[in-house]
Amino acid sequence: MDIRRIVQKLEAAGQSHLLQFWDDLSPEEQADLMQDLESMDFTEINGFFAAAMVSSQASSEKVDSRMEPVPKDVLGSTTRDRDQLKAWEEEGLLRISQNKVAVLLLAGGQGTRLGVPYPKGMCNVGLPSRKTLFQIQAERILRLQQLAEQKHQSKCCIPWYIMTSGRTMSCTKDFFSRHNYFGLKEENVIFFQQGMLPAMDYNGKIILEGKGKVSMAPDGNGGLYRALGTNKIVEDMEKRGMAYVHVYCVDNILVKVADPTFVGFCVQRGADCGAKVVEKTNPTEAVGVVCKVDGRFQVVEYSEITLTTAESRGPDGRLVFNAGNVANHFFTLSFLKDVVNVHEPQLQHHVAQKKIPYVDTQGQLIKPDKPNGIKMEKFVFDIFQFAKTFVVYEVLREDEFSPLKNADSQDGKDNPTTARHALMSLHHRWVLNAGGHFIDENGTRVPAIPRHGSAGGVGPNVKLNLKDGTDLPIKCEISPLVSYTGEGLEDLLQGRELHPTLVIDENGIHELVKNGV
Amino acid sequence: MDIRRIVQKLEAAGQSHLLQFWDDLSPEEQADLMQDLESMDFTEINGFFAAAMVSSQASSEKVDSRMEPVPKDVLGSTTRDRDQLKAWEEEGLLRISQNKVAVLLLAGGQGTRLGVPYPKGMCNVGLPSRKTLFQIQAERILRLQQLAEQKHQSKCCIPWYIMTSGRTMSCTKDFFSRHNYFGLKEENVIFFQQGMLPAMDYNGKIILEGKGKVSMAPDGNGGLYRALGTNKIVEDMEKRGMAYVHVYCVDNILVKVADPTFVGFCVQRGADCGAKVVEKTNPTEAVGVVCKVDGRFQVVEYSEITLTTAESRGPDGRLVFNAGNVANHFFTLSFLKDVVNVHEPQLQHHVAQKKIPYVDTQGQLIKPDKPNGIKMEKFVFDIFQFAKTFVVYEVLREDEFSPLKNADSQDGKDNPTTARHALMSLHHRWVLNAGGHFIDENGTRVPAIPRHGSAGGVGPNVKLNLKDGTDLPIKCEISPLVSYTGEGLEDLLQGRELHPTLVIDENGIHELVKNGV
Repeated sequence: MDIRRIVQKLEAAGQSHLLQFWDDLSPEEQADLMQDLESMDFTEINGFFAAAMVSSQASSEKVDSRMEPVPKDVLGSTTRDRDQLKAWEEEGLLRISQNKVAVLLLAGGQGTRLGVPYPKGMCNVGLPSRKTLFQIQAERILRLQQLAEQKHQSKCCIPWYIMTSGRTMSCTKDFFSRHNYFGLKEENVIFFQQGMLPAMDYNGKIILEGKGKVSMAPDGNGGLYRALGTNKIVEDMEKRGMAYVHVYCVDNILVKVADPTFVGFCVQRGADCGAKVVEKTNPTEAVGVVCKVDGRFQVVEYSEITLTTAESRGPDGRLVFNAGNVANHFFTLSFLKDVVNVHEPQLQHHVAQKKIPYVDTQGQLIKPDKPNGIKMEKFVFDIFQFAKTFVVYEVLREDEFSPLKNADSQDGKDNPTTARHALMSLHHRWVLNAGGHFIDENGTRVPAIPRHGSAGGVGPNVKLNLKDGTDLPIKCEISPLVSYTGEGLEDLLQGRELHPTLVIDENGIHELVKNGV
Repeated sequence: MDIRRIVQKLEAAGQSHLLQFWDDLSPEEQADLMQDLESMDFTEINGFFAAAMVSSQASSEKVDSRMEPVPKDVLGSTTRDRDQLKAWEEEGLLRISQNKVAVLLLAGGQGTRLGVPYPKGMCNVGLPSRKTLFQIQAERILRLQQLAEQKHQSKCCIPWYIMTSGRTMSCTKDFFSRHNYFGLKEENVIFFQQGMLPAMDYNGKIILEGKGKVSMAPDGNGGLYRALGTNKIVEDMEKRGMAYVHVYCVDNILVKVADPTFVGFCVQRGADCGAKVVEKTNPTEAVGVVCKVDGRFQVVEYSEITLTTAESRGPDGRLVFNAGNVANHFFTLSFLKDVVNVHEPQLQHHVAQKKIPYVDTQGQLIKPDKPNGIKMEKFVFDIFQFAKTFVVYEVLREDEFSPLKNADSQDGKDNPTTARHALMSLHHRWVLNAGGHFIDENGTRVPAIPRHGSAGGVGPNVKLNLKDGTDLPIKCEISPLVSYTGEGLEDLLQGRELHPTLVIDENGIHELVKNGV
């Protein structure tokens, strides 16, 4: 351990303050700090800081005047292109059956806003089955492999690449291992780790969060591209013969992992890069929009635009900028390879001002009440600009998007209750569309759209029949092992009368006459 | 008091069981029961029951196959007809200035679902001002009178007719009186009472909820038309020279009372009847839709249609049946007069099956756990079918519709928190559109669309700065006395930097740097 080399390195980089408490540290703490510092490239970090500060000044101008909406000719839609959905789905299933489609999960987040001390994918949102997000996604992969195999009579595999961060890696791997990879083969679930970057103050000094501990954070979901290189993931994909990659974020309970219709649409359009979007209908919804800026595709974050732009509407009454980004993308492997090898170093970090706990010169831990520094992040959509053929695929929010971001609260946005309701409401619709009917405790058929939180009847005097008033009158959950997107339920359900709570899984149909707890 | 006459009347009507506990009653209870029974027309009630049961059998068939969407030529829209909004608004203000526009509030409900022991209009949803729904609506009327007066240089009055029920009448009147009618003239706030009907079992027997007490409930918001006759409200409107009536329901915190744009649209289209709607975008949203059935306009309730119909979409990707009814209507007085004098008796009651507490033959109060009887109700939209010229006016949900129906809960639908947020979010947009800006505690401008429930910064590590996590980062409330629909704020706010919490009222601008409790 050569302390002098580190001292020199830090001096050259103007970061010598990182050793200011060296003499107070125990030998173990000294060793840990040395190891952390040795692994860091301070020249590079200082360069990131300088570039990020410059580009953040530039990007603080509103981009409104340079924005154009997504042109019609790059747009596909589940509602407006119904006649083509079947063909797209078949294309996608064919590619899956040919072992050409991989999925890549962004799971480096820590669930801080959600208020849980473990990775988001390990959350169960209170479904009757108590399944976690990870399990639901794993089972969708299993079912999709089965569908492709049945259609094309050949064994296939959808490898699942899971990007964690330094903070979630071991915990995530343990969880999968304990659950036997939810039925997937261990060798087809590939974990890798995104990079970390230190938090810095406004003068470019790296922040210490303890006398011997640098304040580190993951480098954003766009850290993906660097991590793909570092961890030789692209090579692994090539070795497996992959051609297409579906990238998505862990928090969406409705996510159609490796969605064959989306994949097929992108393939048939010859796209190297595609974004799935949902229509933004409320101008002040906190969602980024896919659009063109200065002629290049990108996602403009909601905080970057003025209200006038957010509220502008076309002749049909819809918002002009309505392509709501849901962090759900398609890439060809060759595009990803170009990104990793050529474009990635050009990507600038975005700057997020934060309140970062730090130790002062006395070694006291301070929790600031104003932002005191920055974290640097890249975004997964930063690479849209490099696409040669970019396409956008609009899907229905109620079918495909319900993210888990917040803890439960009274205004009910993106929390465990709304996620649970979104899934159960979708599965309720699957049952009805397969010819099933729900009946209440009196044997009366429940209308297709039941009154929320109550049983039967109309008018203001209805008595709530649920203990907490926060659940749906129809609780219905269908295992992904049984159906990926509503298919295959007719034989089970046609003409059948069912009691909520209803659970359909690989062991059959389970009904409870009374609502469970 | 002639008990024998009542006995005969009851025998003739098959309702003698209402006196089965007569001998157990105290003299006071006997007198009360006698009074109730004397006021009831049993022949009529039995007739209602028979007709309602017949029509409810008929209406249990799904109407899907007979439904058509609202034709384009009867439709106006705040988003698609922007070039005409000014003209409509001026027409409306002119009619208001001519003392031709009355408003009529449906406030007979009891807030049972909301879980409050007083009428809904008396709720305050936690706005900084603590104003109740009644006060907000009263102040909108005051401001609108002022706008019409300023424009046309003549004093004017918008009389406010308030329909209560037997259960809410005295409480509502007291509340207005205690608050000096919120600045309105007492003689221009006219209370009247809708009728009550007894609950009946499936055999047409009236239900006793106590040994000496008949189970009674209001006759639905469509009880309006009978009440207009009984209470000579149409005559009062005529005496005041009214020509147009805006009818709305108390629970919508964003309601534009006597909305001049809506009134002007209806007047310019020569309509005798108009319905304001918001676009239904989620097929399973629990909202009725305005449409044509067998060629006549009506509202089809969500419980009456199949999922297939609810989910059907046109070539533009929108729901075919998307004209979501918000209980917000325009009528000419002459149309209302025809309804009251000619059509009302033809209206059938709708049947709602309910769990109705009753006394058994031993005199024990039983709370059933299955529906055991019916309540009979009419709906305010039942009269659309009689219109000669019916029009539909589509407005933006985020600008005009946020009903208060439920108590606060985790999935956040139509509760005090969502109502408060809807109002504050609208007023936030008014401030930005008037050229104001919000700054945070560090003096930094807050983006037009701030991150919900947090202050500044991006990324997952943002610390919530609000105690309960359930309120908006920008709290902003503008008194209706200052602005009816965002007008008149430029002079106050142009270029100004403002701290949330912000309250603007008739006394000026009030700012709090820190969020209040």
